[in-house]
Parts: sequence; C-alpha cells; structure tokens
Amino acid sequence: MKLHRILPFARQLFSETVIAGETVVDATMGNGNDTFFLAELVGEKGHVFAFDIQQEALDSTAERLGELNERVSLILDSHANVEKYVDGRIGCAVFNLGYLPHSEDFSIVTKADSTIKAIHTLLGLLKKGGIIAISVYDGHEGGVEERDALLQYVKSLHQADVHVVRYEMINQRNNPPFLIALEKMKDFTSVKQVD
Amino acid sequence: MKLHRILPFARQLFSETVIAGETVVDATMGNGNDTFFLAELVGEKGHVFAFDIQQEALDSTAERLGELNERVSLILDSHANVEKYVDGRIGCAVFNLGYLPHSEDFSIVTKADSTIKAIHTLLGLLKKGGIIAISVYDGHEGGVEERDALLQYVKSLHQADVHVVRYEMINQRNNPPFLIALEKMKDFTSVKQVD
Repeated sequence: MKLHRILPFARQLFSETVIAGETVVDATMGNGNDTFFLAELVGEKGHVFAFDIQQEALDSTAERLGELNERVSLILDSHANVEKYVDGRIGCAVFNLGYLPHSEDFSIVTKADSTIKAIHTLLGLLKKGGIIAISVYDGHEGGVEERDALLQYVKSLHQADVHVVRYEMINQRNNPPFLIALEKMKDFTSVKQVD
Repeated sequence: MKLHRILPFARQLFSETVIAGETVVDATMGNGNDTFFLAELVGEKGHVFAFDIQQEALDSTAERLGELNERVSLILDSHANVEKYVDGRIGCAVFNLGYLPHSEDFSIVTKADSTIKAIHTLLGLLKKGGIIAISVYDGHEGGVEERDALLQYVKSLHQADVHVVRYEMINQRNNPPFLIALEKMKDFTSVKQVD
C-alpha cells in the first residue's frame, strides 16, 4: 500500500527527518504508542518528553515502554506548559487530538486553546526541516470547534516559514481522523502569523 | 523539504509503483511535462498514451519529448474516450484539471462529466496497487462545479476497492491546486460505487 493511512504517513515523515540523539515531544501520550515509536526512533542518546493530564496515561505508557523508559520523561501536565520542561532544539512533535483511547472518562478531551498554545511553542523549538504531526478527530463533543480553531491557526502561518499539509483519506466510513503536518522551513524562534 | 508540494508528491507515488515496461496514461497532456516524466519512468519498453483536445498541446509535447516520442502515443481526443485507444493493464494515470497552461484560449477547460468518465474507465484498467493522481484547480469558471462533482464521485468509491487521499497545502496564497490520489486495492475491471 502506497497511499498510507495517516498514522504510517506521519511516522514515515518522522523517520525521514528525526536524527538519532535528538530530543522529541509526544504532546498527547495516551496509551504510549507514539511515545514507544519515538523512543525507538531517537535511540539510546535521544530523549522523548511525553505529556498527558491523566495518570492513567502515564501508567500504561510506562508499562508499554519497559526498558525504553530511561529515554523518556513522562510528564503529568498539559502540553500547553511544554516550555516549563523542554528547552533547546527538538526534532519533531506529535499530537493525537480528542480523548484518551479506551479511557473510562470521555469528557477529558484536548481543547483548542491549549492545543494551539502548545503547537505555537513547539514550532519555536522545532529544528529547521522538523515536522509536527497532528491527528485531528472531530467526532466527539467540542471536536468540531477544536478542529476549526486549529485550521484557522495553521492557515495563518506564513508559507515561507511553515509548510502546512492536510492529508486525509476521504472515502472512509466512521469519521476517521485526518492529519495536519507542519514542516518548519526557516530557522525562527518566534512564529509569525499573517492575517 | 519532506512535505512535498503536490506535483513531487504525485511523482513520488508514481516512481514507487510504476514498473519499467508498463503502459501508463497522461489524461491531460497540456505542455507535456507529465508526459515527459512518464516516458522516462516507463523506460524503453514501456508506453505512454497522452490525451489532449487541443492540437497546440500535441505540438508542444512532441517538441518537448524529442527522442522519447517513440514511447508515446499523442492522441487528439478527449480522455473520456480512453477505452478506444488503451486496453490491457495500465500502471498509473495522471490528470491536471483546468485549462491548458499558457494557452490563448482559457475557455477550453476540463469538465466534470468527461473527467469522471475517464477516471471510471481508467480505474477498471489500472493494475492492483496502481495510482491515479488528479491535480484539482478550482479557481477558473466552472472549476468549483467540477471539483465538487469529482469529490462526490471519489467519495462514492468503496474503501475496500480504492483508497482515496486528498493532499493539500492549506496555507498557500493564490488558490493553489490540491491533489486527489487513488490507489486500487483489489483487482476489479468494473468499479463499484456505494451510496
């Protein structure tokens, strides 16, 4: 299959751009699948900062990681506070919006304000040529508002600074997520927005 | 740059799926840039069927091809009639919707009915794993209608038969085209549509 689903498409972008030894960010730890993937990708000398606001996510991710735990900081805080924990250049960042899969509490979901604040900070930290990938689910309550606010934000990024791609399988049933991928095209520490 | 613009993204898909010696289709010859790319891709033993309804397109493509002309059939007819010229399996097909670039007559544009008829026929001829890529410009008169009819058609294709991806750079100025890419997932000769 050449037309990948969005998860393998995002992982291919990360594999092509992240260098062993780099620092990367999993902004929405969830069950730790992306955390695990990133921990392998950065290698022994790299580091993953993984965020979630639910202890349940940290517990299942720690279990999933096993020996790879030493490459990962599991942080019980909102990704909106990423600047408190991460400094220096990062190689990539990943977001899965919506609620924690298999959670018992579907009322805990990502929100537009904190998602956009985190992306804004991470774009500043991202290396030139680095990728931020965001899986957008809009089927849950508040999902449409988050999606629209996010789209408005990413469309405001200047095309000379950041390339923004929307990648979507458009003939799938059951409201699947689509991907927003950002590539940083210039070295900047503060993101400009255009009208 | 890892997040390719739509043309390099489509060409990468073709490069990964077309095998030397195959037959392929350029449904909208235009100035022959894709025809040239495909003629190189299929090699000495392959063949490209290239369609346009304007003699101007055939002339400039013939000039562009040079020695590669022997691998190409330049056909002055609508791609809606592709079944009159092509039989057997094809490795890929490409469409650039809208008008002929640099033409003096911008009233000659692709139309939804013939575009969809051609895609429908080509999906039947396409090998399993093959790709059809369609660049959609909607800035010209009638472009929005063609875009919407095309989207309705491709969304009607069953996800088990054809994967349909929309790939779009969403923060670019001046209404750039987006890409629809189809991958045939099963061997069939006649396309099913769902409601």
